[in-house]
Amino acid sequence: MITTTTDSASTPLDRLSERLAGDMEQVNILIRARMASRHAPRIPEVTAHLVEAGGKRLRPMLTLAAARLLSYPGQDHVKLAATVEFIHTATLLHDDVVDESRQRRGRPTANLLWDNKSSVLVGDYLFARSFQLMVETGSLRVLDILANASATIAEGEVLQLTAAQDLRTDESIYLQVVRGKTAALFSAATEVGGVIAGAPEAQVRALFDYGDALGIAFQIVDDLLDYGGVSATIGKNIGDDFRERKLTLPVIKAVARADAEERAFWVRTIEVGDQREGDLEEALAIMARHGAMEAARADALGWVAKAKAALTLLPGNEIRAMLDDLADFVVARVA
Amino acid sequence: MITTTTDSASTPLDRLSERLAGDMEQVNILIRARMASRHAPRIPEVTAHLVEAGGKRLRPMLTLAAARLLSYPGQDHVKLAATVEFIHTATLLHDDVVDESRQRRGRPTANLLWDNKSSVLVGDYLFARSFQLMVETGSLRVLDILANASATIAEGEVLQLTAAQDLRTDESIYLQVVRGKTAALFSAATEVGGVIAGAPEAQVRALFDYGDALGIAFQIVDDLLDYGGVSATIGKNIGDDFRERKLTLPVIKAVARADAEERAFWVRTIEVGDQREGDLEEALAIMARHGAMEAARADALGWVAKAKAALTLLPGNEIRAMLDDLADFVVARVA
Repeated sequence: MITTTTDSASTPLDRLSERLAGDMEQVNILIRARMASRHAPRIPEVTAHLVEAGGKRLRPMLTLAAARLLSYPGQDHVKLAATVEFIHTATLLHDDVVDESRQRRGRPTANLLWDNKSSVLVGDYLFARSFQLMVETGSLRVLDILANASATIAEGEVLQLTAAQDLRTDESIYLQVVRGKTAALFSAATEVGGVIAGAPEAQVRALFDYGDALGIAFQIVDDLLDYGGVSATIGKNIGDDFRERKLTLPVIKAVARADAEERAFWVRTIEVGDQREGDLEEALAIMARHGAMEAARADALGWVAKAKAALTLLPGNEIRAMLDDLADFVVARVA
Repeated sequence: MITTTTDSASTPLDRLSERLAGDMEQVNILIRARMASRHAPRIPEVTAHLVEAGGKRLRPMLTLAAARLLSYPGQDHVKLAATVEFIHTATLLHDDVVDESRQRRGRPTANLLWDNKSSVLVGDYLFARSFQLMVETGSLRVLDILANASATIAEGEVLQLTAAQDLRTDESIYLQVVRGKTAALFSAATEVGGVIAGAPEAQVRALFDYGDALGIAFQIVDDLLDYGGVSATIGKNIGDDFRERKLTLPVIKAVARADAEERAFWVRTIEVGDQREGDLEEALAIMARHGAMEAARADALGWVAKAKAALTLLPGNEIRAMLDDLADFVVARVA
């Protein structure tokens, strides 16, 4: 049972936002200053559309929280938080081109409002800007972490492309994809916060582990929510992954447990891509029959436990408690 | 009249390649090692298609030449040369998506052989790999130069997108676009060669200036060749820029000198995009009438002179002489 909220009106994420509001204001000022372009007005148009769209700034918050948890007295964590948000925004722009998405955070995507070209090139621009920001910290260790994270992200995205529509995709490939598309930036975000604060190796490692496990749990939950959560209720925005023939964790678990008839269903809908009226409902029924949703949620809870265990290696303070609550909250999104 | 060749069978580029063959072999080995991916086999497929396609490796050669000109005794210039080639390859992959190109170096483009998604994501992967390589040199100055170059490249590409089809694009905007799409990587390539060799500031600056001027001359000549060179002979692969409604230097010069009737022609063909049979021939005739090709070639020669002047600040040796010949050769491509 997960209930850590003392104030029922706010989430752990809200409370963390409130605690770090001063730092985050600096991050937002820096983001606005750096997404400008003297020469190409298209750039701030596209980035403002996305950066101002009311994302929760979860990733930069992780960097700020990691540094502040360790009583970092400087200002470079603000640069690194902005760096992380720029990398995130760049990958969103490129993802929307790759997925041919039409909506993001409830608004039309940039590739729809402008064109794919702008999304590709403005994504490149934001990535270059993030790179400039991190160089300004003068920390080669931070640069190494973020360079490796960038490579893992891109590799995970390519792997997802080739793993889609392929029923041989198993849980280990899924985990690689998830580390690439989500957890690599979460873990880099927390790790660089620790590095910039000059934390001992064991604490830096614990921050990495927290971000990694939190990111994996977050993505498993996202993938569950795409099927309506554990209760698997059909509603709006349900089944996108099914229609795009992505092998996410609940489907992988159901495929692994499929009888001959069910396997034929997955081959037709996911591998062949011949989807018909009622197929999404059938997919949900098959997954329910095998407890695939509950099993995926149990995996997410396992990652939450790992995230919380990593935190015990860090100084016990208010921010640590908030990060602990945040880990529970990530999975509490699926009822 | 430009003739610097003593051996009529080889170009200055060939001779530079021969002189730096040992270093370049190391660069090629490193490129092949780093474009691999344990997890995503699609990555080496796409990159091999492009990296092995027989490009002339001009940009990495500039890095090697700069370092060797200054008698650099180490090995980090090999890493930087591979970095520069990865950045170049990443931008080609993204350019082909943006331009919807179907051919590159005489072969079908990656976006045609695989898909736009693979080109976007593998481009991101190569950019991340380049970033890892440069971090390995441990030089913050090098990282700063390449971060700034990356931002200039992306900014120039976005500017080109918005400047296309817009007859208000003048020579100063053209120069910004050219610095972004071509000269920024040329100048970063030569500059980092000097920095890694530990050259004094004045020499580092001279290397930057050489790369900048060479890159601008190179791109002006490329844009001239797209119209068949100064003689403007209609042949295969002629007129792509015209069909894509790009404002390149000869067109900008012709637009600036246009009478009312000619201006109407440019408005229809470039701004409105209503192109008809015989329009390319008409465009060439208008440009010839105003000497636009010769004027653009004269500008390129001016940049070559700047490139050669910058070289005089560097130690006089065999490699400097080859870079001097290379500058002439770049413009000798347009008869």
